[in-house]
Amino acid sequence: MTERVDSEWADQTRIVRDGGTVGQDSRFSVELFAGWSVGGGINGGYLLSIIGRAAAETLPEHPDPFVVSAHYLSASTAGPAQLRTRVLRTGGSTATVRIELSQGGILRVAATATSGRLAGLDREVATTAQELELAPRDQCLSTDFAPPELQEIAPLMSRFEMLFDPSCVGWAMGRPSGRGELKAWFRLEEQPSPLSLLLALDALPPVTFDLGRPGWAPTIELTAHVRALPAPGWLKIGQRTRNVAGGMFEEDCEVWDSAGRLVAQARQLAVLPR
Amino acid sequence: MTERVDSEWADQTRIVRDGGTVGQDSRFSVELFAGWSVGGGINGGYLLSIIGRAAAETLPEHPDPFVVSAHYLSASTAGPAQLRTRVLRTGGSTATVRIELSQGGILRVAATATSGRLAGLDREVATTAQELELAPRDQCLSTDFAPPELQEIAPLMSRFEMLFDPSCVGWAMGRPSGRGELKAWFRLEEQPSPLSLLLALDALPPVTFDLGRPGWAPTIELTAHVRALPAPGWLKIGQRTRNVAGGMFEEDCEVWDSAGRLVAQARQLAVLPR
Repeated sequence: MTERVDSEWADQTRIVRDGGTVGQDSRFSVELFAGWSVGGGINGGYLLSIIGRAAAETLPEHPDPFVVSAHYLSASTAGPAQLRTRVLRTGGSTATVRIELSQGGILRVAATATSGRLAGLDREVATTAQELELAPRDQCLSTDFAPPELQEIAPLMSRFEMLFDPSCVGWAMGRPSGRGELKAWFRLEEQPSPLSLLLALDALPPVTFDLGRPGWAPTIELTAHVRALPAPGWLKIGQRTRNVAGGMFEEDCEVWDSAGRLVAQARQLAVLPR
Repeated sequence: MTERVDSEWADQTRIVRDGGTVGQDSRFSVELFAGWSVGGGINGGYLLSIIGRAAAETLPEHPDPFVVSAHYLSASTAGPAQLRTRVLRTGGSTATVRIELSQGGILRVAATATSGRLAGLDREVATTAQELELAPRDQCLSTDFAPPELQEIAPLMSRFEMLFDPSCVGWAMGRPSGRGELKAWFRLEEQPSPLSLLLALDALPPVTFDLGRPGWAPTIELTAHVRALPAPGWLKIGQRTRNVAGGMFEEDCEVWDSAGRLVAQARQLAVLPR
């Protein structure tokens, strides 16, 4: 009998350092798991958490990505991928590193992270944002009830628990609210961490589902802010869009932890489904 | 008598290509003008418009930055600066380029832009955001009335016209609203362009002025979205923050053109003034 050491997510975002560090450059290998596929590629949040891990391994004194910006250049596929990192600045309470994720010489994601140590930050919180309101979990709709054809297109739905608030789940029954808003409870097998927050920031379906425009919405660029160490327990995730135009839309995401703190935010620019 | 060819802003963001293109890399020189100083450095929006220009010169088929992410690593100073660009992907309707701005070998800004051609985008606009409400310009407070000591700290105020809405100008009289919101009319000498929108997205004072925390708020990272060619005339700029915590704050900015279109958005993570 083998003991299960890591959670599925930890196991599937594991990176392996290739050889020694050359100057301030490092190289890592990773296996992108098919279970994180959605539509035509691998989920961007999953890739972002792998990128965050490469940043953390490159900057051991600065383990937490405060802000990661990532340009998605081509759709990743299941299988091996390569990571190259380069330290751009270090020495203070924050450091900046560039991370590139490629497959077979084709660049998939070009990212930059500025990182530090969340535990060492000033404890003052003067957030004016209102905590996301979600119905109790037993009144929410689980992705477990998604039709089999959707689960086949988006196997990532089986990687976590996601419970949609009933106020914005009409799209699942062909009655999108038109407001451009999605919100849900979210939980991985393991307790939330700064790196898994990067996943949570791009785990929900595109907010365009709620505008009656279902379909794959490839991310052009996503910038994530991780602002605090998340408390254990369920996360609340909210997404909305306000500027749908020119065949693109912006999507803002916020993640609240079980202690009622706004722990992470993201904004992405994505391609509007046709 | 010499004819004035360029506006001040166009003149002060001019970049000069150094030598030929090496592979897909280009190098440019630029002179950072002291007139764009604010607090301890050169204004980040001014730097971003220079970075946008380097992206445009590197990608002539993709002149408009749809999204630029920029990590600010150290404070820029007036004087010469060097730009290096590297094309990361090209060939489709968008292309991605990395841009680094340095001074004397010290990296100031590490940016990445994904660009295309705004004029060629789908004409559909389904924006749900409400247009920023501003008082008529003759009821707003011009930066021309700022006290001389502030103008000395922030000479960039003389580079453009900025008229603050009376609802959020209390900070100038020591009575900040506490809402964390600033909004103003904005105009450069020349008509707005995609590259000058990059300036507009970081031209207002830090939104923390309206929280009773005046002072310099260095940007850690800023991501800008340029979504449409701006119409001629005055721009409306609004900024707000919702998450002040851990010695940092996020600042969201939106820019509306004279035709009532949301033409640009930005979010930045910045250091909270002490």
